[in-house]
Amino acid sequence: MTYCTGILVREGLVMIADTRTNAGLDNVSTYRKLHVFETPGDRILALATAGNLSITQSVVSYLNEGLTNPETGDLETLMDAPTMFRAAQLVGRALHKVRATEGQSLDAAGVKFDVSFLLGGQIRDAAPRLFMIYAAGNFIECGQEMPYLQIGEHKYGKPILDRAVNFNTTLGDALKLGLISMDSTMRSNLGVGLPIDIVTMRRDTQRCEIVHRIEAGEPYFHDLRERWSAALRAAHIAIPPPPYKPVEVDKA
Amino acid sequence: MTYCTGILVREGLVMIADTRTNAGLDNVSTYRKLHVFETPGDRILALATAGNLSITQSVVSYLNEGLTNPETGDLETLMDAPTMFRAAQLVGRALHKVRATEGQSLDAAGVKFDVSFLLGGQIRDAAPRLFMIYAAGNFIECGQEMPYLQIGEHKYGKPILDRAVNFNTTLGDALKLGLISMDSTMRSNLGVGLPIDIVTMRRDTQRCEIVHRIEAGEPYFHDLRERWSAALRAAHIAIPPPPYKPVEVDKA
Repeated sequence: MTYCTGILVREGLVMIADTRTNAGLDNVSTYRKLHVFETPGDRILALATAGNLSITQSVVSYLNEGLTNPETGDLETLMDAPTMFRAAQLVGRALHKVRATEGQSLDAAGVKFDVSFLLGGQIRDAAPRLFMIYAAGNFIECGQEMPYLQIGEHKYGKPILDRAVNFNTTLGDALKLGLISMDSTMRSNLGVGLPIDIVTMRRDTQRCEIVHRIEAGEPYFHDLRERWSAALRAAHIAIPPPPYKPVEVDKA
Repeated sequence: MTYCTGILVREGLVMIADTRTNAGLDNVSTYRKLHVFETPGDRILALATAGNLSITQSVVSYLNEGLTNPETGDLETLMDAPTMFRAAQLVGRALHKVRATEGQSLDAAGVKFDVSFLLGGQIRDAAPRLFMIYAAGNFIECGQEMPYLQIGEHKYGKPILDRAVNFNTTLGDALKLGLISMDSTMRSNLGVGLPIDIVTMRRDTQRCEIVHRIEAGEPYFHDLRERWSAALRAAHIAIPPPPYKPVEVDKA
């Protein structure tokens, strides 16, 4: 399993991904699912991947090697996409390419073409944007009303984002809330686990701000998990007991 | 959608179910999904249902009308099941019966036989038990290490149960935590909604303690939701900001 989230706030963008991959419970490995494409000052893009690793890695390879534009004949990579919209389309085209080459064999082997991506970033002076790209290559974009997207095992970590994140959340708080969301997911699904990769980018800098891998035992994340647990415990203890009256027992 | 949870603690059992049913977003209704079967002093059983309403209602009808035991020829209902295990088996047999009568037509219509049940309760002096029954009629039982089960849209509300519920949780706290779990689900999935039905039973009383429907606007549940939100907000604000250092920008 995988859990990745991207949060796009006024100040910039946070992307968080776990690194656990499994092909059966006895074959658990760590793979990078968060990829950064950067030309500082010009562009910063981050791509998070979920689903079949052979497919997502091939897509990333195509995005690095480039895909031929059918109209112009030019070789295009994420590093020269003119806009974030075109960059999202390029991921879609990479998906089409992988499906065209591998789709039939995967179908024959009963492997589902089940992948999804988050692509966030900023290219030059255009506003930062964040997209979720589906297996068919189509995509949606997150808006200011609900400024986050998730892929993979997303439900456990959704309530905290729903409650706490809005477009005016600071970049630091967005990162903190993303880590709490990751913690909730890790507690309820053993298939999502450390290390966790994080990338943040501050609007209009066109470069990474923080690039960090949280390893097991890291003090800050450990402390965040402990504090969050303790706070939840205190929170439910502080809620008064339910006032509902017992059914009256017939004394007859 | 549906969300139901059952929590089995030392003091007794809590069952909670929402009531929203939909056949498409333009056809949303309220139906009882939590059914109580009680002979005070002898037995108390509660059955929560998720999935296709025509199937779950037929199962409940069979459990009320009785099913013929193929070995003895006797008509059996939940009201005369000798043990909770036999009661769970009876729910399984009711499912087989519905599948035998309706399965082919449902298949032909492309309707999935997609249902699940929670059955909890106590019969006479035997310990209270809680089962989850799958569409095939097979079932699992919850244990003391993880004393709750869920059906329907279960992921949003799982983290709080994972963190806070254990076998020594009081019955009142189990109800409160179940309601917090329901709140998390309702916030993240509009298909789960008020009113909410709750039933509690205290061990060795063999009768309902609380039977209650929480309607929209009820002060206690409204207050619980507000307090929980406020506490979560305070909790994440109290966590220190992430200490990760920005990538050093090359000044060259």
